[in-house]
Amino acid sequence: MILTVTLNTALDITYRVRNLRPHGTHRVTEVTERPGGKGLNVARVLAALGHEVTATGFVGGATGRAVQDQLTRTPGVVDALLPVEGATRRTIAVADTASGDTTQLNEPGPLIASAEWSAFQEAYADLLRSASAVALCGSLPPGLPVGAYAGLIRTARTLGVPVLLDTSGEPLRRGVAARPDLVKPNADELAELTGSHEPSRASRDARRRGAQAVVASLGPDGLLAHTPEGHWRATPPRRFRGNPTGAGDSAVAGLISGLIDRLPWPDRLARAVALSAATVLTPVAGEFDREVYEDLVGRVVVTGEVTAA
Amino acid sequence: MILTVTLNTALDITYRVRNLRPHGTHRVTEVTERPGGKGLNVARVLAALGHEVTATGFVGGATGRAVQDQLTRTPGVVDALLPVEGATRRTIAVADTASGDTTQLNEPGPLIASAEWSAFQEAYADLLRSASAVALCGSLPPGLPVGAYAGLIRTARTLGVPVLLDTSGEPLRRGVAARPDLVKPNADELAELTGSHEPSRASRDARRRGAQAVVASLGPDGLLAHTPEGHWRATPPRRFRGNPTGAGDSAVAGLISGLIDRLPWPDRLARAVALSAATVLTPVAGEFDREVYEDLVGRVVVTGEVTAA
Repeated sequence: MILTVTLNTALDITYRVRNLRPHGTHRVTEVTERPGGKGLNVARVLAALGHEVTATGFVGGATGRAVQDQLTRTPGVVDALLPVEGATRRTIAVADTASGDTTQLNEPGPLIASAEWSAFQEAYADLLRSASAVALCGSLPPGLPVGAYAGLIRTARTLGVPVLLDTSGEPLRRGVAARPDLVKPNADELAELTGSHEPSRASRDARRRGAQAVVASLGPDGLLAHTPEGHWRATPPRRFRGNPTGAGDSAVAGLISGLIDRLPWPDRLARAVALSAATVLTPVAGEFDREVYEDLVGRVVVTGEVTAA
Repeated sequence: MILTVTLNTALDITYRVRNLRPHGTHRVTEVTERPGGKGLNVARVLAALGHEVTATGFVGGATGRAVQDQLTRTPGVVDALLPVEGATRRTIAVADTASGDTTQLNEPGPLIASAEWSAFQEAYADLLRSASAVALCGSLPPGLPVGAYAGLIRTARTLGVPVLLDTSGEPLRRGVAARPDLVKPNADELAELTGSHEPSRASRDARRRGAQAVVASLGPDGLLAHTPEGHWRATPPRRFRGNPTGAGDSAVAGLISGLIDRLPWPDRLARAVALSAATVLTPVAGEFDREVYEDLVGRVVVTGEVTAA
């Protein structure tokens, strides 16, 4: 199975409101709730692609129960989330039906006790023994050491399980130094890590810092990959407009899926770009338009070159 | 015991956010959660005053469980809430720490099925048999008939239980026609009911429409009462600044408490005004500053006259 790790799971709530005004009182006309946190989105996309997936991380409180209730109804995802004392955070997206704007309110997440973190590390090592790959995704909840992902990467490497990291800031910097098989930063995260706003140069720098492969997401322009086997650029046949939330998570799912299916890099990148574009066309992270995906996957333009052996 | 009815219970969530901007992404720095809905606030204040209280109404989903978990930890309140299929609504107050403003987002509440409403009416009639008074408070959730409160008032009157109604709009209009013992509108609700913005005239009109007594809340200026025994005005010794949320609910609790303790009207009104002011000084609805209350209750100024026998 593929293991996804979401240390800061979320209950993603979307409100429809007409004309959001600070200091006003607003009647919410529509409420939707989804399990959230990048790793859970990745898990849902992988399951929809037909992979066996196990989702782990932390979950707690009434919001955590709501996340687990919905995850139970997602076929193909095994729930291995660890209960904690604190409550799973909510994220609230207030979609203004008048302006089309979305305003985001993100709770910080529960404070994780050191005993809870120790219990997680043990459970994680056990799960890795039956994993063919692992994706570590998203922000860290309060209370975890900033090197949390670095430790999880070392455990995966010790057990010979390919490990992908998708996070930002200092947890990304520490994680990269622990030599993950793959990181998938966006352009801003890559610039913050390396100081360079030129994605190719920044990707090469991230590899020198420890990442074995770097796939940078360039938004509607697709993906840029720097790997030991070569470097490529993968571009969708046209730009897609819609809701970019979850597009990066779908790219992660595509990359992991391609790794498990032993696809060559250009095909992995095509799968990731097509999934990403097909996610932009759906209103919800962790879901994609299957027809668009199947239509696009053969039409992604991949250019680049293989590294001389 | 005193029965409080909250058909549209809520999980009241407060977010602290620095500088709320539409279209922005905001990190919530502090999250607090409280059981909400006017009737639950009334129940908590009555319990704090030493009364035995039973809280009924509807509750459902993960948000409903969070409401019940917290209610269980409130000494003196017996939970007789009925489970429903839909989820209890959230209300979100976004407190901007930069401007001091609060922006409110209110979910509509669960759709109540007709079988759920029938089950409630039966349970309510059973509870009334051991109730010395009943308070019907707040908005109606979707799916209930607009005359829902009118029906509950008739049942209470049939069983000889004094009934107080605190709602607004059409449910208030229908409720008043069912001849409740007391209504407690604020000035806006009273104006909407009667068409008059002059509180004394509007209160007399509301009595003609069916309410046996009317206590209008005039915000920081106190209360105005028109009853079969006479009419009075009760004014706090000074104006209090703070958070008015829950002040009306504390006034309802004071009026019911004074009724149960068989206080004469001027003392009931003094209790309600003092509780209301002591609530303005706390950040949370359903709580009051006991020291302020005890200091104020003897200093509320009540003027008026008794109706000639």
